[in-house]
Amino acid sequence: MAPSGFSFKNDYSEGAHPVVLEAICRDSRIQEVGYGEDRPSKRAAESILNACGIGRGEVHFVAGGTLANLVVAAAMLKPYESIIAAESGHICLHEAGAIEATGHKVHYVPHRDGKITDAQVRRVVSTHNDEHMVCPRMVYISQSTELGTIYSRAEIEALAAVCRECNLLLYIDGARLSAALVSEQNDVTLEQLANLADAFYFGGTKNGALFGEAIVIREPHPHLEFRRHLKQRGALLAKGRVVGAQFEALMTNDLYLTLARHAHSRALQLAAGIQQAGYHFAYKPTTNQIFPIFPKAAVTKLLTKFGFYTWAPLENDQMVIRLVTSWATPIEAVEAFVAEIEEL
Amino acid sequence: MAPSGFSFKNDYSEGAHPVVLEAICRDSRIQEVGYGEDRPSKRAAESILNACGIGRGEVHFVAGGTLANLVVAAAMLKPYESIIAAESGHICLHEAGAIEATGHKVHYVPHRDGKITDAQVRRVVSTHNDEHMVCPRMVYISQSTELGTIYSRAEIEALAAVCRECNLLLYIDGARLSAALVSEQNDVTLEQLANLADAFYFGGTKNGALFGEAIVIREPHPHLEFRRHLKQRGALLAKGRVVGAQFEALMTNDLYLTLARHAHSRALQLAAGIQQAGYHFAYKPTTNQIFPIFPKAAVTKLLTKFGFYTWAPLENDQMVIRLVTSWATPIEAVEAFVAEIEEL
Amino acid sequence: MAPSGFSFKNDYSEGAHPVVLEAICRDSRIQEVGYGEDRPSKRAAESILNACGIGRGEVHFVAGGTLANLVVAAAMLKPYESIIAAESGHICLHEAGAIEATGHKVHYVPHRDGKITDAQVRRVVSTHNDEHMVCPRMVYISQSTELGTIYSRAEIEALAAVCRECNLLLYIDGARLSAALVSEQNDVTLEQLANLADAFYFGGTKNGALFGEAIVIREPHPHLEFRRHLKQRGALLAKGRVVGAQFEALMTNDLYLTLARHAHSRALQLAAGIQQAGYHFAYKPTTNQIFPIFPKAAVTKLLTKFGFYTWAPLENDQMVIRLVTSWATPIEAVEAFVAEIEEL
Amino acid sequence: MAPSGFSFKNDYSEGAHPVVLEAICRDSRIQEVGYGEDRPSKRAAESILNACGIGRGEVHFVAGGTLANLVVAAAMLKPYESIIAAESGHICLHEAGAIEATGHKVHYVPHRDGKITDAQVRRVVSTHNDEHMVCPRMVYISQSTELGTIYSRAEIEALAAVCRECNLLLYIDGARLSAALVSEQNDVTLEQLANLADAFYFGGTKNGALFGEAIVIREPHPHLEFRRHLKQRGALLAKGRVVGAQFEALMTNDLYLTLARHAHSRALQLAAGIQQAGYHFAYKPTTNQIFPIFPKAAVTKLLTKFGFYTWAPLENDQMVIRLVTSWATPIEAVEAFVAEIEEL
Repeated sequence: MAPSGFSFKNDYSEGAHPVVLEAICRDSRIQEVGYGEDRPSKRAAESILNACGIGRGEVHFVAGGTLANLVVAAAMLKPYESIIAAESGHICLHEAGAIEATGHKVHYVPHRDGKITDAQVRRVVSTHNDEHMVCPRMVYISQSTELGTIYSRAEIEALAAVCRECNLLLYIDGARLSAALVSEQNDVTLEQLANLADAFYFGGTKNGALFGEAIVIREPHPHLEFRRHLKQRGALLAKGRVVGAQFEALMTNDLYLTLARHAHSRALQLAAGIQQAGYHFAYKPTTNQIFPIFPKAAVTKLLTKFGFYTWAPLENDQMVIRLVTSWATPIEAVEAFVAEIEEL
Repeated sequence: MAPSGFSFKNDYSEGAHPVVLEAICRDSRIQEVGYGEDRPSKRAAESILNACGIGRGEVHFVAGGTLANLVVAAAMLKPYESIIAAESGHICLHEAGAIEATGHKVHYVPHRDGKITDAQVRRVVSTHNDEHMVCPRMVYISQSTELGTIYSRAEIEALAAVCRECNLLLYIDGARLSAALVSEQNDVTLEQLANLADAFYFGGTKNGALFGEAIVIREPHPHLEFRRHLKQRGALLAKGRVVGAQFEALMTNDLYLTLARHAHSRALQLAAGIQQAGYHFAYKPTTNQIFPIFPKAAVTKLLTKFGFYTWAPLENDQMVIRLVTSWATPIEAVEAFVAEIEEL
Repeated sequence: MAPSGFSFKNDYSEGAHPVVLEAICRDSRIQEVGYGEDRPSKRAAESILNACGIGRGEVHFVAGGTLANLVVAAAMLKPYESIIAAESGHICLHEAGAIEATGHKVHYVPHRDGKITDAQVRRVVSTHNDEHMVCPRMVYISQSTELGTIYSRAEIEALAAVCRECNLLLYIDGARLSAALVSEQNDVTLEQLANLADAFYFGGTKNGALFGEAIVIREPHPHLEFRRHLKQRGALLAKGRVVGAQFEALMTNDLYLTLARHAHSRALQLAAGIQQAGYHFAYKPTTNQIFPIFPKAAVTKLLTKFGFYTWAPLENDQMVIRLVTSWATPIEAVEAFVAEIEEL
Repeated sequence: MAPSGFSFKNDYSEGAHPVVLEAICRDSRIQEVGYGEDRPSKRAAESILNACGIGRGEVHFVAGGTLANLVVAAAMLKPYESIIAAESGHICLHEAGAIEATGHKVHYVPHRDGKITDAQVRRVVSTHNDEHMVCPRMVYISQSTELGTIYSRAEIEALAAVCRECNLLLYIDGARLSAALVSEQNDVTLEQLANLADAFYFGGTKNGALFGEAIVIREPHPHLEFRRHLKQRGALLAKGRVVGAQFEALMTNDLYLTLARHAHSRALQLAAGIQQAGYHFAYKPTTNQIFPIFPKAAVTKLLTKFGFYTWAPLENDQMVIRLVTSWATPIEAVEAFVAEIEEL
């Protein structure tokens, strides 16, 4: 990491927030039942369901986001059923075919700012109407999206409506859900989202946890037997308490919002500095991932001092880059980056 | 856990050893590269390869044992290739069909004290000799076994020989490998085992880690692309540093042996007390899992004071139970159990 | 085939019976709808359902037995559900892991004369009772079995009863169902069998068809969408009429029974000759597969004149061989074989 | 089929050509070895390899095209490897997710007249360059395409070149390969195509066979063990002779070309009549599938007299329909159709 100084590559470069670590370390010699039936996991699940306002739901903790997505697909779809997703979606591009490895097709829909619409969903459904084709059964969206944008309440409601109409399940990848919740531009509460989606996962790894995501299922079908699916995919942790304790800490006093707000304000500061220096963005800065555009020469220079991903080359020797902030991003790193671009 | 007092149910009831926790918490704000390419993971991998004496090998860290087993199967076998295992093996019984879910058949071989022999392997191979059948390609054994026993060096050498002869891979599930290494009855060093197996996993969860296992591959095929397999199965952790740091701690000053020795001595003390009280064992006590036999009435009484699994009913109202000790088992718990059975 | 003269290797060495061929050739220029929705397939399905006495059932035609078995497994089981079968069962040994390739585990139960019992089924169910294990959901038996034996009505009723009790599906591989139906020792009618099983396949390939099997589902679940499963596994034939026409011919005037009776009487004649010559059988001759025991030297000599499979070596230089007759086996072949062994 | 008179729905509405039927019926009582190792299959395979000019290749016969495609994917790809295909490709749309059911992702590339280009392939490869993504490994094209068009030699050479450059396999779905070979616009011989592709399948079902396709692999890898893959997917027919005999007949005196030429000339006649009547086509008529455009009202009227698929609605109340001819299409049907549109 050394050669390029502070890294804005992602929001999982650091370990965990001290309060989360403390929760893990506390009571380490106290014995708990294994495989997620421990007391911390039960308390954390209850807190999450309360925050979501879905008392009858189920919560299952897993180690990572790809595992969450693939277990949900394996558990909720019949072999011939498929998923509709934006082609920028994590399951489409960055999971090495994890969904297809469970046997299910993913329909790639062109996105606008990382988002898809109810009209696009309806189109896929209407063109898959005979038995020689797969049967679309799930819509996958990410909130916030892979491009840092967010769905409005109206947009999610429209997707939920088309899902009800077409017998589809709405599933939300919430790896960065907290980042969406704290955005000024957000108008969907956690409770609203939890009631519109059939299932979603609430991300820990990218918001201050050491690792771990919480899969939330709104109305568990009695025969779903989700735990057997978890076990079969290697997703049931022996010491489930470890994830439970982290989420208990994150839910206590809304720590998850506090951490997300820290990341968000750092992103806002970065974006403001970049804008003031006269640069533009590929997507409107909305959450903790921002995508400024710089001349390629400037990018090369910035890369000698900071870590980040180059996202896409543009015409006229311009380049989109991605900058990500986290609960741990210090103000000094932001100031240093802004100072650097002011000098470009 | 309360109603039955101290639990001997398993070796993952507690959290992690303080030194492991300290390693996780240390330098939490220092940034590391994601997905297992961080410095702690690299140092831990190097330590493990050194301890194994296999310089060219590869180490990959995953969250749990089922995940380790299923990724190895998915990565190393062609679709029509199968695994030979004891019917008491973890992949046969306790992984909810995880191997089959990757598309591969498992041949169940009757075991003797949890172990299988080269002759049994040869028999499966010789009866699967035409193209209408699967092609056996991997032998799976556990060291220590699911019944607390261990393979001798001669036994593993014989299995390795039949594997070479029949073009099979030898894979060892080392969820409790450390428990085997510290047994007085053990004559296979880690280095010998690592050089006899084509791949194995070295367990952290059941020996003082918070979670995590290290998959060790002796001679990685250049095109194996194991990391893509890990990603596809959801096994690549974003903050891979978390497992790396734990294994770095476990390897430093051979902490893994210290912890295993603690568990082992507690098991020996338990076994001695039970033997002195006149009871027998279903399998010779060898590692940290022991299987004493008590009258059913005694078991019922013991269950009011301690947690443990009843393993198998026997004739004459006898019952085999399983008792497991760990790095965290206090001497007082052992003494209390022994006191209880002396009073039976 | 030349070097060993007439072949008793199996019941698919010849082409199809003339009446079946005629049905295929007839009206070849008449157009039919594709993918099994043609008129011959519909008529054949109706005939089969009538013969089975299950008016609400569904019939689907596929090209071969392995395809039938794997589509049924894929369509009827959830990912964590498994199949209980005799270890001599076709799906266990001779389908190259086709069931496991759909992701499902098969439990191998020791057999007695190719058969398993309700008690064995109950034992598997009772030992797979927690969420870390697969959930047994289907019992697979073959009628007639891979060893030429047959289940009695009482035996199948007992299996059907344990299935109802334990929420299991009873599935029967009827590759050689006709051979069972015409045995003097049989006491299960097609109608009884069809009403005891949840699904079965009725074999054409081994009883005079060119190829093709009929999957019969007693009470199709409205959402089963079996045709989509067929399509996904490559089992939906474009010219489905080809299989339909064959089964229509086989059902007309009970041709399937006539053909099976021919094969059966040839097997009886073979068995009688072998018995008269003083030889014994590994399994009681019951259908068109018989398993006589000869000295190895005699087997070597017989192999110079006839084709057949050597099945299993026995002590004292004895050998079990398998002889199979078909609708096309001429009496001369049987007489030649018997003459040969009389001279041994 | 009755209500709409003659059907132009597809090229598998009829049975098989008389010469093919004769081949199946001939020598029906002669015994052959099972599972594709019979003499007719061996002779047919040799004829095909000769016609292809690839002496070292392998030929495997299967019942249908989806089965051919899915077995090739299962046999030739590692779990994390994917296929690039036109979104109009058969594997993308009309196989109910058969490829994904083997665990592999398909990249959908926008097509132009059913075809994709080397530049598109290069783009997919260049955007899948890290281990979090699948690894593109196969290019799938259809010749002729699903839209009746054909690739030129230059186009296939360009695809083959990008495949060599990027370590991809070129696989051609030849369900209607014969239709391409006889087109006046074709400049790729069977031999050239067979030497440019790593594997392809040569279609029988849609060119006069009862059913059956021949998978041709140019340079079989010694460890490919294709027959085991066939068996595992249910694609190994017991009476393999049935497909062998059909292909032997199709190859003899180039019957496959004769049949394709019949279908082609019927399509030309149809197209000429339609054009003369003043109508246009969505794609240039090239092979036995043509796509004329009519006013919707005319389509409704035509549907009362003929069978065909409506393909896509256009603006101004126009509609694309698909008309397919076959070896069995009588001139009278063509004339009747043309007469009908002249009257519109």
